[in-house]
Amino acid sequence: MKKPFKKPEPGDKISVKINNKEETGTLLESHDPGVLLLKLESGYNIGLKREEVSEIKVLKKRKKQEKKEELKMSGKKPIIDFYLTGGTISSKLDPETGGVKWLIDAKELFGLYPELFDVVDVRVKSPFMKASENMDSKDWIRLAKLVGKSLNDENVKGVIVSHGTDFLHYTSAALSFMLGKVNKPVVLTYSQRSSDRGSSDSRLNLICSAYAALSDIAEVMLVGHASMNDDFCFMLQGNKVRKMHTSRRDTFRPINCKPIAKVFPDGKIEMINNDVNKRGRSDGKIKVDAVFDNRVALIKFYPGQSPDILNYYKKKACRGLVIEMSGLGHVLSEGKNNWLPVLKKLIKKGMFVYAAPQTLYGRLDPYVYSPGRKLQEIGVNFLGDILPECALVKLGWVLGHPSWRGSVSTKLKMLENVNGEFNERLGSEFLI
Amino acid sequence: MKKPFKKPEPGDKISVKINNKEETGTLLESHDPGVLLLKLESGYNIGLKREEVSEIKVLKKRKKQEKKEELKMSGKKPIIDFYLTGGTISSKLDPETGGVKWLIDAKELFGLYPELFDVVDVRVKSPFMKASENMDSKDWIRLAKLVGKSLNDENVKGVIVSHGTDFLHYTSAALSFMLGKVNKPVVLTYSQRSSDRGSSDSRLNLICSAYAALSDIAEVMLVGHASMNDDFCFMLQGNKVRKMHTSRRDTFRPINCKPIAKVFPDGKIEMINNDVNKRGRSDGKIKVDAVFDNRVALIKFYPGQSPDILNYYKKKACRGLVIEMSGLGHVLSEGKNNWLPVLKKLIKKGMFVYAAPQTLYGRLDPYVYSPGRKLQEIGVNFLGDILPECALVKLGWVLGHPSWRGSVSTKLKMLENVNGEFNERLGSEFLI
Repeated sequence: MKKPFKKPEPGDKISVKINNKEETGTLLESHDPGVLLLKLESGYNIGLKREEVSEIKVLKKRKKQEKKEELKMSGKKPIIDFYLTGGTISSKLDPETGGVKWLIDAKELFGLYPELFDVVDVRVKSPFMKASENMDSKDWIRLAKLVGKSLNDENVKGVIVSHGTDFLHYTSAALSFMLGKVNKPVVLTYSQRSSDRGSSDSRLNLICSAYAALSDIAEVMLVGHASMNDDFCFMLQGNKVRKMHTSRRDTFRPINCKPIAKVFPDGKIEMINNDVNKRGRSDGKIKVDAVFDNRVALIKFYPGQSPDILNYYKKKACRGLVIEMSGLGHVLSEGKNNWLPVLKKLIKKGMFVYAAPQTLYGRLDPYVYSPGRKLQEIGVNFLGDILPECALVKLGWVLGHPSWRGSVSTKLKMLENVNGEFNERLGSEFLI
Repeated sequence: MKKPFKKPEPGDKISVKINNKEETGTLLESHDPGVLLLKLESGYNIGLKREEVSEIKVLKKRKKQEKKEELKMSGKKPIIDFYLTGGTISSKLDPETGGVKWLIDAKELFGLYPELFDVVDVRVKSPFMKASENMDSKDWIRLAKLVGKSLNDENVKGVIVSHGTDFLHYTSAALSFMLGKVNKPVVLTYSQRSSDRGSSDSRLNLICSAYAALSDIAEVMLVGHASMNDDFCFMLQGNKVRKMHTSRRDTFRPINCKPIAKVFPDGKIEMINNDVNKRGRSDGKIKVDAVFDNRVALIKFYPGQSPDILNYYKKKACRGLVIEMSGLGHVLSEGKNNWLPVLKKLIKKGMFVYAAPQTLYGRLDPYVYSPGRKLQEIGVNFLGDILPECALVKLGWVLGHPSWRGSVSTKLKMLENVNGEFNERLGSEFLI
């Protein structure tokens, strides 16, 4: 007859007998009542089927008091402002509905990630909870203003934003423009699998994010798995990064630049890109420039596409377009679907038109072929090695400034390397 | 005083004294009168400034007769049908205008690529000469019909199509559907730099294409540089490949599959993907199915985007849409810009709507999150790991069949793995 289980609690060190083998580790919160989630000494997590567990021993209770103290802030550890905004990293399975519930307060965060609280005092804030496909420029503005306040709070060492993966690279690009040159690390992180699964990537991403947020690398950056292994994360420049895989843990890839650094779960940081502005911490305040004009659009050009799509956006009172052009910067330039006369007409009427590379990797160059030169003559501006997604965000941000609205100053601002969105040193490396 | 140069001709083996060093190699045709283009024994090409050359010796004249014979077909070598369609690989600098001229006949091809004619008898055809951004479905249909004729000509061992890079992956996807299971190799190739530059990638790509076209791998495939080195090419499946860099020689990358094989300039072929249908040559005739309905469009979704773009395409009498969705298959699903009610309405009215991954890498999965399930309930179909570009081509091709026009058969055909466009074995490998 099986002994009734003692009721171990998350944070307890326990040993478990399963199929006549013993596993020892720290119990984590699991939202599947049929699964015991155990953090092994190696740092790996395993999910054990309760029905296969024949014995559980509590080796060491986590001190209740210690837990409370930590949630109240130890007062001894550096303070990190932690913004929960939604996404898989902030979700847990709801065993009743089979759906997903948001994880919204410090206590819940502690239940899943106790080790984070060993490193930093966390002030958890949750301005909104959304899947990232439902975020828009209003959310970017709100987040920029909040993060700006944290950056200007001298008690705060750094900021972490947890976020859905799908459009995280849009938010990180928006923050890079709205916050400008920051005085402390602003770390955006994520997970591809929800936190209460044994295979989740969130634990490594979060602990590495904590160390990144304490570092002297004052940048808006993404921190997440560098590979499919659970060994270290990359710090990636927030406006030159893109989600490149539907499900892999290392889905975020630096595009046209190197990762900034490797960050390990023991806190070690290895610089990779020494070009990055390693300014160190400053006591200076930053000025948040959180504006956006939504009258912008992104068009991915494909063969045979009618240029009438341009007229559609004009009719919709769009002020600026980013076109994902092919190769070095081309669109259809002959026959009945010639884009050039339509572009010329709209640009004359005041539309701002920018080209970004559909290949994602590499740099546009309008000078190699005559269609590129013609596009430039009629007023299309070529945005070098910028990501199309980043170009759209930058255009909305630039047009959000009434004082920059003249065609010359808009053009100049779009071509200016505001915060590293162009890699002027880009060679022919793929840099994947 | 400098001696006047003898007039060596392309194909001659010459030695050149330049800055007191000697270089030996085969003279290639150069369209810059100030540059001598030399193919070294190593296979590398160098461009030498004429003004720095102090002496040229002709070591061995290329036999005129041999050249003529080869252009008339040796009758001893296997016959390849070679379709020149434009693009950088078919262009040469026009020294008078500084622009680009097309290379359109066998003699010109021979002038630049004599080594190709050592391997195969080439029948050069040029149905049209276009930059690939100006090609559309009419060109795909024309090309498919021509290539189909070649495949059904028992004298022909294989087909090579030279093509601009920008939208080569659209043409190769179109041919993969229009030609179906082929009986012989159909090789599409390209270059990133024009043929008369010393650094051109066209020479390796062409010689490897010739060996690929003689192989027993009966597929529609791309052949081009596997890396930045000039050592070998990859054979890449034509409907799972994408231009991923604006300027690199190895710009074409297999997406969600392995390369088929390596092919070396000495003719050696090393298989990589043994899953590929290595059917070998068959004497069977193929049936070309070259149809296309242009009433299709590709939309790349971005955060905050209004779903009104869907209504625009409906008004334009569009019959089918491919939407590049985020992550596992999401679009904006709440608030005033909720895409779901608009999609539902249009699908009810008969619009075909398909989802493809915006990440490019990985596979959509509508079952993980509720927005994906909702999209599926209203009739959006998820196309797994297909490339968005390939999905658009496939949709136009499927809708081009009047007999498949019912909503059930269109849906089934789009979800059917017609010619390897889905990788059913895809794991979580990035496979870059």
